[in-house]
Parts: sequence; C-alpha cells; structure tokens
Amino acid sequence: MSNRPQTPLLDQVATPEDIRKLGKEQLPQLSDELRQEVISAVSVTGGHLGAGLGVVELTVALHYVFDTPHDKLIWDVGHQAYPHKIVTGRRDRIRTLRQGGGLSGFTKRSESEYDPFGAAHSSTSISAALGFAIANKLSGDPHHAIAVIGDGAMTAGMAYEAMNNAEAAGNRLVVILNDNDMSIAPPVGSLRNALARMVSSDKYLTPRKLAQKVVRRFPASVQKTAKRVEEYARGLVTGGTLFDELGFYYVGPVDGHDVQALVEVLENVRDADLGPMLIHVVTQKGKGYAPAEDSADKYHGVVKFDVVSGKQAKAEAKAPSYTGVFADALIAEAERDEKVVAITAAMPSGTGLDKFEKRFPERTFDVGIAEQHGVTFAAGLAAQGYRPFVAIYSTFLQRAYDQVVHDVAIQNLPVRFAMDRAGLVGADGATHAGSFDLAYLCTLPNFVVMAAADEVELTHMVHTMALHDSGPIAVRYPRGEGRGLPMPAAPERLEIGKGRVVRDGKKVAILSLGTRLEEAEKAADQLEAMGLSTTVADLRFAKPLDEDLIRRLLTTHQVAVTVEEAAIGGLGAHVLTMASDHGLIDAGLKLRTMRLPDTFQDHDKPEKQYDDAGLNAPHIVDTVLKALRSNSAGVGEARA
Amino acid sequence: MSNRPQTPLLDQVATPEDIRKLGKEQLPQLSDELRQEVISAVSVTGGHLGAGLGVVELTVALHYVFDTPHDKLIWDVGHQAYPHKIVTGRRDRIRTLRQGGGLSGFTKRSESEYDPFGAAHSSTSISAALGFAIANKLSGDPHHAIAVIGDGAMTAGMAYEAMNNAEAAGNRLVVILNDNDMSIAPPVGSLRNALARMVSSDKYLTPRKLAQKVVRRFPASVQKTAKRVEEYARGLVTGGTLFDELGFYYVGPVDGHDVQALVEVLENVRDADLGPMLIHVVTQKGKGYAPAEDSADKYHGVVKFDVVSGKQAKAEAKAPSYTGVFADALIAEAERDEKVVAITAAMPSGTGLDKFEKRFPERTFDVGIAEQHGVTFAAGLAAQGYRPFVAIYSTFLQRAYDQVVHDVAIQNLPVRFAMDRAGLVGADGATHAGSFDLAYLCTLPNFVVMAAADEVELTHMVHTMALHDSGPIAVRYPRGEGRGLPMPAAPERLEIGKGRVVRDGKKVAILSLGTRLEEAEKAADQLEAMGLSTTVADLRFAKPLDEDLIRRLLTTHQVAVTVEEAAIGGLGAHVLTMASDHGLIDAGLKLRTMRLPDTFQDHDKPEKQYDDAGLNAPHIVDTVLKALRSNSAGVGEARA
Repeated sequence: MSNRPQTPLLDQVATPEDIRKLGKEQLPQLSDELRQEVISAVSVTGGHLGAGLGVVELTVALHYVFDTPHDKLIWDVGHQAYPHKIVTGRRDRIRTLRQGGGLSGFTKRSESEYDPFGAAHSSTSISAALGFAIANKLSGDPHHAIAVIGDGAMTAGMAYEAMNNAEAAGNRLVVILNDNDMSIAPPVGSLRNALARMVSSDKYLTPRKLAQKVVRRFPASVQKTAKRVEEYARGLVTGGTLFDELGFYYVGPVDGHDVQALVEVLENVRDADLGPMLIHVVTQKGKGYAPAEDSADKYHGVVKFDVVSGKQAKAEAKAPSYTGVFADALIAEAERDEKVVAITAAMPSGTGLDKFEKRFPERTFDVGIAEQHGVTFAAGLAAQGYRPFVAIYSTFLQRAYDQVVHDVAIQNLPVRFAMDRAGLVGADGATHAGSFDLAYLCTLPNFVVMAAADEVELTHMVHTMALHDSGPIAVRYPRGEGRGLPMPAAPERLEIGKGRVVRDGKKVAILSLGTRLEEAEKAADQLEAMGLSTTVADLRFAKPLDEDLIRRLLTTHQVAVTVEEAAIGGLGAHVLTMASDHGLIDAGLKLRTMRLPDTFQDHDKPEKQYDDAGLNAPHIVDTVLKALRSNSAGVGEARA
Repeated sequence: MSNRPQTPLLDQVATPEDIRKLGKEQLPQLSDELRQEVISAVSVTGGHLGAGLGVVELTVALHYVFDTPHDKLIWDVGHQAYPHKIVTGRRDRIRTLRQGGGLSGFTKRSESEYDPFGAAHSSTSISAALGFAIANKLSGDPHHAIAVIGDGAMTAGMAYEAMNNAEAAGNRLVVILNDNDMSIAPPVGSLRNALARMVSSDKYLTPRKLAQKVVRRFPASVQKTAKRVEEYARGLVTGGTLFDELGFYYVGPVDGHDVQALVEVLENVRDADLGPMLIHVVTQKGKGYAPAEDSADKYHGVVKFDVVSGKQAKAEAKAPSYTGVFADALIAEAERDEKVVAITAAMPSGTGLDKFEKRFPERTFDVGIAEQHGVTFAAGLAAQGYRPFVAIYSTFLQRAYDQVVHDVAIQNLPVRFAMDRAGLVGADGATHAGSFDLAYLCTLPNFVVMAAADEVELTHMVHTMALHDSGPIAVRYPRGEGRGLPMPAAPERLEIGKGRVVRDGKKVAILSLGTRLEEAEKAADQLEAMGLSTTVADLRFAKPLDEDLIRRLLTTHQVAVTVEEAAIGGLGAHVLTMASDHGLIDAGLKLRTMRLPDTFQDHDKPEKQYDDAGLNAPHIVDTVLKALRSNSAGVGEARA
C-alpha cells in the first residue's frame, strides 16, 4: 500500500453514480487521481498503459454526463478501459488485470453491467452501439449508446459499414472519435475547444441543422485518418465535414484532456436532438506520465515497471521468439527471391514485419486494420507472379475468412499465410486465442496447412512456403519463445504432407501437431519409465495428412493419441475421418484426440491455460493410460 | 440458328485485338450487335441479364482502349461479364452459360486469360486490381489494372479498405464506378459527358492536379452511394470529390451508353500520369431491351425467356421454396413476439425478408453489402433484449466470421442465423456453395447448429430459434423447393441437441443431417429390398450432437453412415470425435462419413452436383455395402 498514490477523491467513487455527485470543478482532481491509480496498477500488472492514460478525462466526463449503465458505453478494442474499470466498481480488483482469475484486459460483459458489449478486436463498437440504439428506438427507451473508437480503428471496413447505417439510430447514437494520432502537434488549443462548445450549444443548433440538410445532399463520405485538425476546424466554418455527409452531426475537435470542456460538450450532445452525433476528441496517448509520453510507442503495452523511473522489468529472453524467427526466415527468403513480398494489417511489430520492412521497405505493405483487403490484395499479387506472405494473427485472420475462401482457395492462388499467436495466448484471453484456424482452413480444398513444432521447424516451413507455388499454404505458430534450439545453417524444404517420427516406440503413438511436441516428448519419457514403449511423431501437416505415416502408427501401436493446440474440428477430427475412410476403425482402434476444450478460456499464463485445457504432458500420459485400461478388446491388445 | 440476331461486325471479333482494329465510328454498331447477342444467349440459358446489358458499351470501350489481357480487367462480382465473355474468345460457348460443363456465370481464371481474377462475391475487385497494379509497379511493368465496381458494391467495407490503400498504386490502378442506381433520372446528358471529357483531356490536367494537391489536405473520405449526379458535377467545378480525398483522380460522370465518349475518356485516363484514377460511369441496368428496362428488377436474374415478348419460362413450383417457408415462419414468430427482428445484407428478396419487411417494416434492417456490420449490429440488438434473425446465405456469412466468433460466440449472445443456400447451389457454382458452415460454426463453443431436413423441420427450427435465448443458434437449409409436405398447424419447439429416428431398423444406421434425408430414405428402401434392415435418423443438430441417440445407433447396428451436405470437418468429423472420446471405436466400429468432396465443384444442376459429390441414394447404398463387405472382424458382425 505504501507506494500507492494518495487518491482522496477517487476513494469516494465506487460507481459512476458517485462521480455524478461531484461538482464539475472537482473533475480535474478526480482525473488526476484516476490517472495515478492507473499508472500504479499497471506498474504492478503490466498491460496496455498508453491508451488508458489518454482517455482518463474522457472516461470521467462520459460517466459524469451519461446515465451509465442505462446509457450504454462501448469502448472499441477495450484495451483503453482500465480507468473505466476503476470507476465502475472494479477498483478493488484492478491490480489483478490480465492475471489468472483477475480482471480482463478488455471490456467484458460477464465482468460488469458497465461493460454492455465486450471487445478486443478492433472496429466493432459502432455496429454494436447501433444495435443498442436501434433496440432502444424500437422499445421507446430514450437512453443513448456511445461508441468510443480510435482513429486507427476507423480504417477498418467494418467501421465504415456501420457509419453507413448510422442514420437510422437518430440521436440515441453517439460516436466519440478518440483521435490520438501521435503526429498531432501542437496540442489542441482553447480556441478549438471554444468552437466545439459553441457549435454544440443550443443557440447554434438551428443554423447548423439547416446547413446540415444542405450538406447531406452531397455524396456521403467517411474519414481516412483524423489527424488534420485544422481541416476539421475549417469544417465547422463551412458547415460540412465528412461525418456530416454520412449523416452524423459532427462536433469537434475537442481537447480530450480538458475534462470540464468535455463535460460541457457532452452535455450539449446528450440533450440535443440532431440525429447521430460524432464528437471528435483529440487525446494524447500516454498523457500525464512522462516516461510514456517520451516513449516512441507511448507505453502501448508494458510489462511491470517502476513508477518513478518508468523502467520496465523485462525478463531476459531464454530463446528467440517465434515472431522473430519468422521475420528472420522471411528476410532470408526475400534475399534469395525478389518475388517475396510481405503484408501486415496494422501489426508490423507484432508480426515481426517491422524488421522485414527495414530491409525491404518497397516489398512490405501495411494495409491498416484491413485484413479483408490485405488477403485479396495478396491474391492479386500472387496472380501476377509474386510470392506474398500475409502475416496475420490466427484470430485476426477470421476477419478475412471469406477472402481466404473466395479469392485464395477457390482460385488456388499461392498466397502464404503466417499465422502467429496460434493456440492459447495468455494474458490477452479468449478474444485473441488462435483456436479455430485448423478447423476453418482444413475444411477448404486446395489448402496446405502446417504447424511448427519449434523454431527450427518454423524456419523450414517458411522456406517450404516460399517455394510452394501450386496453391495456398499456411503455417501456424504460437506466441512466445521457441525452445532455444540451435538454428540450422540453411533451411530445409519439407515434402508437402509428410510428417516425421521424432522417437520410435512400439506400444503407444503420440501424433503431435505444433508446439505441444515438447509436452508429447515429456509424456513419452514418463510412459517409457512405466515400461510403455512410445513413438512420438510430429505430423507437421494438418492438411494434407501424412496418410502413410498415420496409417502405420495407428495399426502398429496399441494406443494412439493426437495432440494439437486447436479446437474441435482440427487435426484430430481429420485423422479420425481418414481412419474411418480407410476402414481402420472397423476392427477396433484405440485412438484419442486431445484438443482445446469446447469453451472459451479466460486469460491466464499460457502454461496454466494449457493445464486447464488438459494438453500438458501429464494429461497425455493420463489419456494414454485410460485408453490402455479401457476394457474393450481392441485390435491393439490383440496384437500386443 | 434462325432466331439468332444478325451480327456482321461482331462476327469479325474473336478477341479484343479484333475490336482494336475497328474504327471508333464502328463501335456503336458493335455494341448494338453485342447487346443483341447477349439477349439471345441469355434467352436460351437464363442467368444475369440486366447487369450485362448495362455494361455493353463499357465492355467494348475498355477492350478498345486497354491492352487486355496484359492490362488486367477485373469485373466486380462478375455477373455482368457476359458481353466480356463474348468478345474474349468465348462466344462459341456463350449458350452454355451456367449449364453443366459450360461457361461459368461469373469471371473465372481457369476459363480465360482475359479473366485475371475470378469473382462472384461482391467488392473484391479494387483489392485484387491493387495487387496486380502493385506487382506491375514492383516489376517495372507499365500495364494497368482496371476494376469495374458497382455502386452497391461500394457499400462493403472491403471496398473502402481497398480505396484507403490505393494511392500506392499510382496510375496503374483504374477504378470504374459503374453507377447503375435505378433512381437516376433523368438520364445523364451530354453536358456532363462534355465536362467529363474536358477534365480528362490534357489541357485540364495541370490545374486539376494542382487543385487536387490542395484537396488532399482535407480529411480523406469515401462515397456512400453514387447516385447524386448533380453533386458530382459540382465536384468538378469546386475541384474536389470524395474520391480525390482518398487519393484518386476523379473523372465523371460519363454516360456509360455513349461508347465513343467512353473511349475518349478512357484514352485520356490510360495516358495520364495522375495517380489512381476513378471514372464514374452512369449506366442503366437492362439497357436496350425494353422488357428488361420496363421490369422492376431490370431482369437482374432470369430463366429462359422469349426474346420478342420477354416472357420468362418459369416452371411451375411443385412445393414452396425453403426461402419462402423461412419467411412465413419468421413472420409467424414476429406476430407472436415483438422482440423478433430481421437483418439482411442487401439480399431482401434472396432471403425472403422482402416479405417480412412488408409486414414489419420497422423491424427489418437491410444493412447493405455489410455482413460484418450486420452480425455485430445483431449482437448489439441481442444484448439489449431483442431477438435478431440474421438471414445471410451460408457462403456470405463467411464475410462475417470474425464477428460471429468475437461478438456473438464469445459473448454467448442469442443471435439467430438463418443460413440459406447451404450445400451445393447449382448454376452459381463453387463461389456460392454453402459448404463450410458446419466446419466453421461447429468448432465454436456456445453455438447451436441445426440443419433442416425438410420444410416442416425448418418451421420447427425457426420456432425453436425464436425461443432460444441462451446463446447463438443457426439453421442451414438449401436453395430450392421443399418436399411438398403438408405444413403443421403450429410449429413445434425442438429439444436442443435431440435428433429423431425416422425409420427403425436393425443392421444399418443412416445418420442424416439436412435435406439428404430424402436420399437416405430412398437408400433405406433399397437396402431393405436387399434384406438389410435399416434405421434412418435425422440428427437435426450438428452441435450439440445427440450423443445418446448416436451412441445407441452406433453400438446396435452393424454399419453406420453419416450423410451431410457439407465439407470435411462437419457432422461426420464431430460424430467420429464423439465416438472416439467415448471409446466407441476401441473395439471396432463400421462407421463411414459421407460428405462433400475435398474439391470446389463447378456449376451444374444440383442433383447432378450431388451425384458428382457421391451423396445420392445409390452412393449411400454403395457405401453401406462396401463397409459391410470389408473383411475386418468388427463388433457389428460379431453381434449380428
């Protein structure tokens, strides 16, 4: 407790109702205390810091003005909602953020009635808010739905689709554009705040309303980036902005760190009857914490840190990360082959493509939060003879599933997919888990789907992908560090659809796909110690399956177990289908499939998550033993 | 041949090279002949007529001006490409359109080098063209990539994402906005064409270029609908349009039926060096064929028709369509429950929601081509206590997969999905087949997934969905007519996860999901005739499975076969996984899974497609007999 900030005003706030009891003049102090509490909490837990610090005043103002939880406040992405969590009854658990059993790092419906709609993937908030607003309209409830969305999230097509549909919501929909583009300089001044207050105050409404009616006759439009503040200000004078044209009543720009100005503007917005409103709020990421403000990434995501120095307690890496290994491997391929190009959807550093871009700026394409476009763009590049690597997290590739099917698989175009963050991902929780890619890709004709068992394998697979021109190919690999294996001098080209036997045995066969291989080998050690001779295979390919190898393993061992870091419908289902197709189960087969459970798992340490999922070595041993003990007279026993 | 039009000029055109040998003054005649040929061909084959008639002159002009196939011409959706097919070496097969073994109704890479990128789903063309353009830029090839996209397709987020990325392509990217909004009246006149030619001619380029540089300092924007021609014209005067703001050089509007004007504009565009160009072309759907022009839907999609009268040879329906049964069932639910609302993504008539809308206009939401937004919007409605039915074809729901996972499944919100066009769809071919929904939905926790075996079942399932408030629920049903069964006075609420036994037997069990039930029953008849007592079950639920029923069927019959209209990873894979989990395969199990083949099947009559897929009654019989004959000593035989 000793190093916690003094927060006398915040201590009186259990819920937003308590904020609303304060005088407006107290809100700056409350904001300061809230900011200190956020810094203190995240210094203990790690997490997203910069984004939350940018919206402290906005959080206070929104809860002060709107009748939450009856008015629905929806934070896009949700990683900026730590201050919101503190003032909505979760302060007592704020130092459990992103820890196992603790608060989620995002908004979450099950956590609080003040989180009406969970998030974590970007650009969903306007659509969701529109749902609430239209529901209220249908039922005659006058309450508002408020979406808070960043300027980056506005690049996603989904946000555009939602804005195209916003007009029907009327004044129940409020969109806050949280413009924290770091290029904004100098900071937004009082003149602009005055302008914003002016246009949102009653006496200016009528002429603006008239002007808007004229403006709406123009073709509708939407913003690309929100960083040109001067032009927005000009929009106020001329009476029209892009948001007007989409049917929004635009107000702004507003200084997002002047809480009293925000309150005034939001009160006007709340009480106006002008159709959907868009409030353009300019904020500074990392605001109010010098080490964050001075940092290039504004402490976007941090580990535990020292509040005074800002120094982060980064643990020494034991081995290179899969992300880093992928980047190095891809650079090596690109050195060799000028047709290799790389595509990321606003995640250059998360995917390692920042490193690639430094070496090959002309061959790197960051398309923004636009996975759909990114995949079809890659298909076009492939159709013209290039070798595009699309580096998108497994969970985010879901955004481009139709493009994967329609533009890549049906046309059998050699687009390469590098799916980072496959399997469970730790602190980011269920929304970021890469659980479904095996099911959603292996069902598609033409696809080759691999999973890397370790960092050496990943290097081989990147090489194999670069050389695979006959159709689409994907590799999945997890978040985090590799096994620390010595890297080969040169990568190998793998034969498509061929696995490898890692250790040879007689009684038990473990068919592993991906980085559970390490657990499979541990399990094999334990089984050997019990006298059960165990084969461990790394199948490498979920599609096409190594049918020869699988058939051999299934028919020559008493028990076989598949292990994968994916949900039902993946490797195990495909192995079973093959076994059934070939009649291998007709005469009895002790085959078990180990996979992720059929639930969404909350955030925790990855090893704990895999323990909960039942995918660690002891679970493999247990599954094998149970199968061996099962009293059906299977072929395995008969042959043993 | 006698009723074919006289086409002396068209007869000289085998490829676009032949068009380019003609004088400009011959192009109107060529266009007229091409139009007559399109009408004649579609009168024989049926298909998309109105869209093709609208782009006859544009097709001629594009091939006249651009160096196809080296310049890449990409038709968005591709259903307007019949004239393009005729002039690109496929005239001899044009009367095989959409017939088995014949030309596809869409563009298709495997069909012609003049189809550089296939399509069928909307709004992919700009992304693909950008891929070609960037590839050319990287390799120093000066050729262009031209996307032709409709105003409707511009409502999809994907088009916006692509335009946001277009600037990097430079002048190699040309986007033709084919604005055929039917509300345009009066038709575009010569003044506007003159303006368009003027601004695209050399002497106006420099001042426009300068103006654009100023304009680009405004926030970027994109169009919502392209129907307000006056405002576009005004844009020419003021120097800025929404497309300018996205980095495009805007030219237009141009009369899309004045082929010589089009050629002049396109020549200027081709030779200019002004960055990505957007040409706004105004066309009339159904142009030049009076019955189409006079029809409300402009003969968007037609069956065979009489050219003189325009009368379509609609076959008498034998039974109500699944689409119609769904609509009636949903209306009945909405009559009962005011919380029932319906959402379509620009397919009101395809989904039957046009009928729903007539009854409940306030409770129907057409979100445009915006499946992503539509699903999350529905999730918001559900979170606020409404009961949204999202009616999206199985294939198009792929566009919203991440929203299904992230906004619906993870939050366990009771959004109802009505997936029409499940399974094979006939003339629309692989791009429209609903093959993957079982795999991509059944892998998700919390989901309930049903398939209707007939129209009565569909009614029960719609009722069951309306009452299912505990999480997401989906039903799939095919294109086409039901079985003609008498409809029940009132729908039944089905127990979640419970199948039904349709006929009781002893030796063979057929586990059917969906409308293959009819084939399963036929197969059972044939098997009975061979003395093989056969049970037929309609599982109804792909998730959760009826484990009790399945266990009983598997363990009390000699052979069991699952049958589904879906790709690998669906019902069969889940039944096998369950059987393995429960140890049912340990002692031998003759279980086969019948499913769609692991290939993309071309268009054909649905019954022929299912024959090719091996999913008709004879195939079921054959699979059963082969399994019975298999010489492994399974438990079934032992018990028999």
